[in-house]
Amino acid sequence: MSSLDAVVHGARELVVGPAAGGDTLETHADGAVAVVDGAVAAVGDTADVLAAYPAENATTAIDATGKTVLPGFVDPHTHALFAGDRSDEFAAKLRGKPYQEILAEGGGILRTVDAVRAASDAALVANLTAQLDVMLAHGTTTAEVKTGYGLDTETECRMLDAIAAAAAEHPVDVVTTFLGAHAVPDDTDADAYVDAVIDDQLPAAANGPARFCDVFCEADVFTVEQSRRILDAGREHGLAPKLHAEEFTRLGGAQLAADLGATSADHLLHATPEDAAALADAGVTPVLLPATAFVLDEAYADPQQFLAAADNRTGAPVALGTDLNPNCYTHSMGFVVSLACNGMRMAPADAVLAATAWAASALDRGRDGTGTLREGTDGDVLVVDAPSHVHLPYNPGVNNVEAVLTDGTVAVGGGGA
Amino acid sequence: MSSLDAVVHGARELVVGPAAGGDTLETHADGAVAVVDGAVAAVGDTADVLAAYPAENATTAIDATGKTVLPGFVDPHTHALFAGDRSDEFAAKLRGKPYQEILAEGGGILRTVDAVRAASDAALVANLTAQLDVMLAHGTTTAEVKTGYGLDTETECRMLDAIAAAAAEHPVDVVTTFLGAHAVPDDTDADAYVDAVIDDQLPAAANGPARFCDVFCEADVFTVEQSRRILDAGREHGLAPKLHAEEFTRLGGAQLAADLGATSADHLLHATPEDAAALADAGVTPVLLPATAFVLDEAYADPQQFLAAADNRTGAPVALGTDLNPNCYTHSMGFVVSLACNGMRMAPADAVLAATAWAASALDRGRDGTGTLREGTDGDVLVVDAPSHVHLPYNPGVNNVEAVLTDGTVAVGGGGA
Ligand SMILES: [Zn+2]
Ligand SMILES: [Zn+2]
Repeated sequence: MSSLDAVVHGARELVVGPAAGGDTLETHADGAVAVVDGAVAAVGDTADVLAAYPAENATTAIDATGKTVLPGFVDPHTHALFAGDRSDEFAAKLRGKPYQEILAEGGGILRTVDAVRAASDAALVANLTAQLDVMLAHGTTTAEVKTGYGLDTETECRMLDAIAAAAAEHPVDVVTTFLGAHAVPDDTDADAYVDAVIDDQLPAAANGPARFCDVFCEADVFTVEQSRRILDAGREHGLAPKLHAEEFTRLGGAQLAADLGATSADHLLHATPEDAAALADAGVTPVLLPATAFVLDEAYADPQQFLAAADNRTGAPVALGTDLNPNCYTHSMGFVVSLACNGMRMAPADAVLAATAWAASALDRGRDGTGTLREGTDGDVLVVDAPSHVHLPYNPGVNNVEAVLTDGTVAVGGGGA
Repeated sequence: MSSLDAVVHGARELVVGPAAGGDTLETHADGAVAVVDGAVAAVGDTADVLAAYPAENATTAIDATGKTVLPGFVDPHTHALFAGDRSDEFAAKLRGKPYQEILAEGGGILRTVDAVRAASDAALVANLTAQLDVMLAHGTTTAEVKTGYGLDTETECRMLDAIAAAAAEHPVDVVTTFLGAHAVPDDTDADAYVDAVIDDQLPAAANGPARFCDVFCEADVFTVEQSRRILDAGREHGLAPKLHAEEFTRLGGAQLAADLGATSADHLLHATPEDAAALADAGVTPVLLPATAFVLDEAYADPQQFLAAADNRTGAPVALGTDLNPNCYTHSMGFVVSLACNGMRMAPADAVLAATAWAASALDRGRDGTGTLREGTDGDVLVVDAPSHVHLPYNPGVNNVEAVLTDGTVAVGGGGA
């Protein structure tokens, strides 16, 4: 027998997803959504939905009068699994310590690698679970999590196992990415390490939960050619390509992502309109990570060039993610939306789509409707204590997410009928 | 008989306030604070505090193991009392609508004035109470609230009454500022309006709760000479001067604030090092409002010139505030601290002081120890779910405030012994 998990009704604004054929937002005033057996069964006017799915029959009924109902946020780029605390480096930088000095004293990414290698399996699972809890409290219901702090086969596989273990017990829907090529360990050189990633790490990692293979393609890290070799090998193991591209320099990562038909190309601060056009032509979703620019005090990527390049195409024009990691330590997609609007000057409707439906495309989850509320999609629903989606960026620094349903079940807040 | 209101113990870091004679932060590792009859009775090592004030004798005992304990935030600049919703203007601007068009269609500050004039007394009190609730949830325990959306004697006085009524029932300690000279109403000219502020509004407002008189000194609003007349008149009515200065242009407001010995000069985006020196010499606290620059996409004020100018002086070098208003709609001092560090490149310790003890100076509340946790100060205490004060700016967009005590009583969270 089917079960009426939840009815959320009376919303001042209910956000469905992208409007048909365009980039504007489809919404209902006085909207409602019903979730049956974990999936959306009906969306529309409150009167119609309640007639078919009476609130009193639902396990959870939420009166959203005056509030906004949205699909759960999709965070398509995180390094949420790590160990240790590098806030001291953040403070030292702001006191004027040069980054080279911090590195020379053992700071930076390799410090996190040491901490992850030293952490127990249980500690890794607990760390990721704690991060997912905070992400969920801020409305993220689907999140990518990358490896990349192991940099050896054993620890990369331990990270994959920890992601699988945390994900199995957590309401957040986790999508896993193998990122063995995140940095070059200090006991080897880049070419030898690329061989190790391809010959040792990838065959072992391919047995785990990873769907994607990613590379940090950047000056002094991995070249375009090294990135291509790794992503080709990943694809042979069934992992679809993703790429860290054009973050600090324009190296050619965006063109590589287009050549490979990667699922996403991420960062893109130094991408050109030609890069944007190549990505759009190839159906690669550009993922912008404005929190990283914010914490590093860099100029933001330009979202307009990606929106313009996507005109008359059907793919996702652009996505937003947190880039949660020890350098960019934010869990909040709402904060990222506020950076996108206030900092990158995106329109609120575009930013909300980029944090939901379009972000799902960056995880190849666009086709199943992740990030939208339509009949048949997962019942991942946010109740936001604000009169419209515009208030997400209009009210920066404040988490207005009051309740979160995952697959129709209360994961945060709720309050009841 | 005296009552042991609260003991908070075991904090990984307890922030006391500015270190003696310097701008560094005085902290205790494994710290505790005890509050008796609403005031701090002891601060120090957990073992010492618990020996004198056993947790089992306290009305509220909080185990802050692994966490940070801070004085409550002081928000020295808000326009938190208003009516209406101008998020549609925010969205229109981001869709590319020129600001002049928004104004021509009745947008901008005068739209808020219309909404406030039309609101009932009860609605004004309810609106401010709702804003204070969100501020408190983000750790603000002392807040300034300005008038300035009435622009006539009747409504300015209704705003003062609403502030008094909301403050009387709310845990946040509210400091009131009269800002009749916030804008020029559209049915008069600036000189005539200045006369009305001085001759009609000020005598009536002086009977209310206001401690300060403030003026929006800016090109095309109020000149330096008009501002001086109003602030002189305010002082005759017992209201200490404050000033909106050098926000969009360098008009001379900072020098006027120094001349008058104002309590604070606020915004200061276009202030020069000479202005900073004049403010420091005159003991005027500079108040920086980075959220306003963030939402307007303007360059931030430079905090370093104020910190440099304050060397070897005993006043507060610089304060931070939200500027909460319909244009800059944030309630979170933690968010402002994250903007100060990530955007303005302040050191975390300086930013935390600027949001607590130094902000108190901008409300002439420095001498009573507001914004510090020392014997005899108000028992306004934050428990932050993070290992140090550095995590406030290191974790932007996330409200880590887990519990708030005001005068030793649980106002938010708590959890108990
Ligand atoms: Zn990344
Ligand atoms: Zn102001």
